[in-house]
Amino acid sequence: MSLKFRRIGIIGIGLIGSSFALAIRKKNLTDEIWGYSNTGSSSKRAKELGIIDYVANNLFEIGKNCDFIFIAIPVLSIPLILKELAEYAREDTIITDGGSTKHFVEECHKYFKFKNFIGGHPIAGTEKSGPESGFAELYENNCCILTPVRETDIKKLEIVKAVWETIGMNVVIMSPKEHDRIMANISHMPHVIAYCLVDSVKDKYFNGDKITKLAGGGFKDFTRIAKSDESMWTDIFLANQKYILSAIDDFEKSLKELKTFVIEKDFEKIKNFLARAKKSLLD
Amino acid sequence: MSLKFRRIGIIGIGLIGSSFALAIRKKNLTDEIWGYSNTGSSSKRAKELGIIDYVANNLFEIGKNCDFIFIAIPVLSIPLILKELAEYAREDTIITDGGSTKHFVEECHKYFKFKNFIGGHPIAGTEKSGPESGFAELYENNCCILTPVRETDIKKLEIVKAVWETIGMNVVIMSPKEHDRIMANISHMPHVIAYCLVDSVKDKYFNGDKITKLAGGGFKDFTRIAKSDESMWTDIFLANQKYILSAIDDFEKSLKELKTFVIEKDFEKIKNFLARAKKSLLD
Repeated sequence: MSLKFRRIGIIGIGLIGSSFALAIRKKNLTDEIWGYSNTGSSSKRAKELGIIDYVANNLFEIGKNCDFIFIAIPVLSIPLILKELAEYAREDTIITDGGSTKHFVEECHKYFKFKNFIGGHPIAGTEKSGPESGFAELYENNCCILTPVRETDIKKLEIVKAVWETIGMNVVIMSPKEHDRIMANISHMPHVIAYCLVDSVKDKYFNGDKITKLAGGGFKDFTRIAKSDESMWTDIFLANQKYILSAIDDFEKSLKELKTFVIEKDFEKIKNFLARAKKSLLD
Repeated sequence: MSLKFRRIGIIGIGLIGSSFALAIRKKNLTDEIWGYSNTGSSSKRAKELGIIDYVANNLFEIGKNCDFIFIAIPVLSIPLILKELAEYAREDTIITDGGSTKHFVEECHKYFKFKNFIGGHPIAGTEKSGPESGFAELYENNCCILTPVRETDIKKLEIVKAVWETIGMNVVIMSPKEHDRIMANISHMPHVIAYCLVDSVKDKYFNGDKITKLAGGGFKDFTRIAKSDESMWTDIFLANQKYILSAIDDFEKSLKELKTFVIEKDFEKIKNFLARAKKSLLD
């Protein structure tokens, strides 16, 4: 299998899309990178920065001319793009995405008569957005989940897997549902919590300054997450509503347990709770 | 004011104590550093590493021979140490601490007939512990809170302030209660939450592996905090029980609000909630 594409298309050129462009260029996976963005502004900026070679005018251009297409836009908008791309895709076109939930994969797979679409989720990112924030190493040593369905074309799956592996990711395969359930706990919940913690102190001041000015490293990690793009995360919270609510329940149970021990001033129980959590990370 | 001490004593030579030793040595604040630790093992190790010059055999030695003493041990043990040191302190001895709560300051101040004790809290740390984990730059550009009481000797307060400023900290003065209230929200809560989030996923697996293996940057920040020393944090949760329970309430209110918006699938309300939190960090 020769892993070199004639032309790769990227839809959405923010942090994720531009980092993908820089990474595939570095690994020489294609001769040419085309980009398309909804408003056109981020793709134009990416062209100015030399991240992509050409700004496509519409999805038709991308769909007809690219043999590998990566969709990197807010997750609720992905199904519409897939629906249109399904009209243009040739038999050998491969389409994948970076959406943070995979709830739409089962349904959208049906649009493609050539089974062109492989759902995916490279688990990488920073709190920054826009093409300027992209960097070729974003994906290295991180995990990428691919979510085939029963009818997925295994050859196309293997190609998508090889692309992510070439730019440094560890690829894990699971069903879309499994993905959404797991991500609710380990990716979406940290964001729910970070936004809520910041919200809970937003009106607290000391000497006219926000108390967050006194924060140490622990709180700063939370604020980094809470600076993420609110539209993108609203999309995710809605797209993965069911599993996120379940993850909130899981968390609330744990919080209730620890809170009870604190109310009871039970040194041993608190310490065991903390030690058990810590140990679970080291197992 | 000449900021040079004849002999500085450090009680507890973990991350905080050893970093303090390295920092004051770097800034030439003393000719000699004596260390004391409860079991003796960490002070012996610190001596081997060249971090301190002498391992004191008891508190008497430290109290009688050092003109500046920094106590860096789990917070619930600090009052006992202060009670004993109060018997040995000369008029010009200055004693401060690094305890994460300041609930004991008002009471312990009374032990000292020469007003030797100034409560403090350098807000710096990592998830590591032990003398090996210390480094001279730990305190630089971080915030240190000093918590005088009504009767505090202002000259001694100024000296403690100058020490922390010399090793790079921004010193903020507030009452012990104000300190504990603020720290509950911005330092203790991130730990409560991190331990609970990790606890909530401890029994979740995918293909025989913990799902935490699939975690991205957001979750990893939480797990870093949840690897902190459990005894130290149990102490803090107990010592600051009242304000921590209040901070948990604040957080639960925010979580309830966001959860309701997610249940209602209200895009605008979720987005506004996230945007408001984000904005509060930038104000």
